[in-house]
Amino acid sequence: MTELSRKLLEAAGATKDEARIVTESLIRANLAGVDSHGVLRIPSYVQGLHNGTIKAGAKHEIVRETPSSLLLNGNWGFGQVVCADAVDRVIAKAEETGIAAAGVFNCNHIGRLADYTQTAVQHDMIGFVTVNSDPCVAPYGGRKAILSTNPLAYGIPAAREAPIFVDFATSIAAEGKVQAALAKRQQLPPGWIVDSSGWPSTNPADLYEPPLPPVQAKLAGALLPAGGYKGYGLGLVIEILAGALTGSGCSDEVTSSLTNGVFIQVLNISKFVPLQMFKERVDKLIRLIKNSPKAEGFDEILIPGEPESRQQEKRTKTGIPVPESGWITLRTLCKEHGVESEVLKKG
Amino acid sequence: MTELSRKLLEAAGATKDEARIVTESLIRANLAGVDSHGVLRIPSYVQGLHNGTIKAGAKHEIVRETPSSLLLNGNWGFGQVVCADAVDRVIAKAEETGIAAAGVFNCNHIGRLADYTQTAVQHDMIGFVTVNSDPCVAPYGGRKAILSTNPLAYGIPAAREAPIFVDFATSIAAEGKVQAALAKRQQLPPGWIVDSSGWPSTNPADLYEPPLPPVQAKLAGALLPAGGYKGYGLGLVIEILAGALTGSGCSDEVTSSLTNGVFIQVLNISKFVPLQMFKERVDKLIRLIKNSPKAEGFDEILIPGEPESRQQEKRTKTGIPVPESGWITLRTLCKEHGVESEVLKKG
Repeated sequence: MTELSRKLLEAAGATKDEARIVTESLIRANLAGVDSHGVLRIPSYVQGLHNGTIKAGAKHEIVRETPSSLLLNGNWGFGQVVCADAVDRVIAKAEETGIAAAGVFNCNHIGRLADYTQTAVQHDMIGFVTVNSDPCVAPYGGRKAILSTNPLAYGIPAAREAPIFVDFATSIAAEGKVQAALAKRQQLPPGWIVDSSGWPSTNPADLYEPPLPPVQAKLAGALLPAGGYKGYGLGLVIEILAGALTGSGCSDEVTSSLTNGVFIQVLNISKFVPLQMFKERVDKLIRLIKNSPKAEGFDEILIPGEPESRQQEKRTKTGIPVPESGWITLRTLCKEHGVESEVLKKG
Repeated sequence: MTELSRKLLEAAGATKDEARIVTESLIRANLAGVDSHGVLRIPSYVQGLHNGTIKAGAKHEIVRETPSSLLLNGNWGFGQVVCADAVDRVIAKAEETGIAAAGVFNCNHIGRLADYTQTAVQHDMIGFVTVNSDPCVAPYGGRKAILSTNPLAYGIPAAREAPIFVDFATSIAAEGKVQAALAKRQQLPPGWIVDSSGWPSTNPADLYEPPLPPVQAKLAGALLPAGGYKGYGLGLVIEILAGALTGSGCSDEVTSSLTNGVFIQVLNISKFVPLQMFKERVDKLIRLIKNSPKAEGFDEILIPGEPESRQQEKRTKTGIPVPESGWITLRTLCKEHGVESEVLKKG
């Protein structure tokens, strides 16, 4: 699958390095079970390369820099490429100064946020990544989509236990889950969306203007924030960190779900407390939680990141499942670009 | 009320400066309508001074320092005093480096978090403050209190609009609200707590071991996290930022609700983007939200911090309401400490 992805992206115009970095990011997402950010994204990236929204070979630039801060112009290259560099740069800064942050603008879709926090964790730092995108979430008390799903991710290293990876949208659910329910003709749980008149609805079709997804995904209604005013407040902060502090733009200034304003921050643990002491405290907290009594209906308590690391272990052995519709699209793309790959015979 | 608070704290042993800083923090909380962090805290502070958990005249110390980071030992003085200094110091650092953070350990209760983010906002910076304390929240899927309510606050400056102040607990509700329901003999909304057996309950008494508050507030059950696994994930991050990164300790290492592990961070906006551009984007976002159509049952959409600034405007004219039981306690304390104050005649 790695071979197919690299060949396809290169055939569509990506440089060898871009194709490698983006492919590795997609495959890591699939291995972690986050298929929404995996190889199913290849068609939209290929399309972006063809219509020029993704500029192959673009070089990102440092616009402003201090000992602990960085503003990067992505120049509309691949989001994964500029952000992989951004996280390396803030890690290098935090080696000296204890904490560093980068903002990125003119940036295409960066993929799975936890990916970047993982790099921080590998350097014994705490990573924090957050993005904004186009509006699809109503403020608490409203019924029009003004905020984006404003997800955030934290990565925290442990000693013997697996690291903690928190990664969630501040909306009650990602928009992709509404599309998935629509495709399966399922109702939504109450409280997820309001329709175009602001009425609560459990019909996924009520989120969209016709023609419905997969033809287009233009919103008529809105997703609701997680936890009412709390998710709304946190989403608003993220909209501003990722959209205003980076200069990318907020809300209706963002016109495509394929772009991101990005805020990345790392904390160098050892500049605060001895690293081993920190990691042992995290281990102890993880074990306290894992060994504590379970609520009615739960067999175990999961640590954030645990479901993904279990999937990774499993899928590293069994491979990545791709739905039939995905194979059809990938086969067509390969044919159009004259790409041949062993994996197509298996799929 | 300011006079009464200062006199009482001084009579109980606080220095003039401590009494002034703590009093100003309490009064600001009351003016903002956050009475749980206002003058009703005076009795517990007076008790802390007498039993030595709050060390009057304690000098806090810098333990570690880099150009952007700071670790402070509060030496068990007043939390408000060390944190007022911590926020000034990180602001000075961020003037140079764009971003700075401080951890504080051996720290007593610091009061209302938004107070510190306000200082950042006055310096045209984004402030972020978070604390941990003793365990009272169950992890998602659990029924034993392991995490604290792990609140967070963000302050964000605007141009012509009022600044944004987000300030909430990552538990579904603060423990004080359960005590308030108990006092008023009201049921809780479903989903707030589980009892000692892990069963969901709407009876506020089920959160506590007898004798019930106000005699003591020892937990038998647990509060639940806001938004299920999302509030749990964010709460876990905060427990680690405030408890492990600062060296204060996490979960059962914290034995009193009157102490805090503290993490404070500021972002110097002008080191990322031109300040005016940032502020105008925040203004525009605020207006987009305020002017957007309302959901069923809502007359207006509030910006985080708006309810508090309205209270402040009102109470600055009308004064701070103190319940009868509060006056009784304050009168008794004044009598015990030989403190006289004009306000006692009015109360």
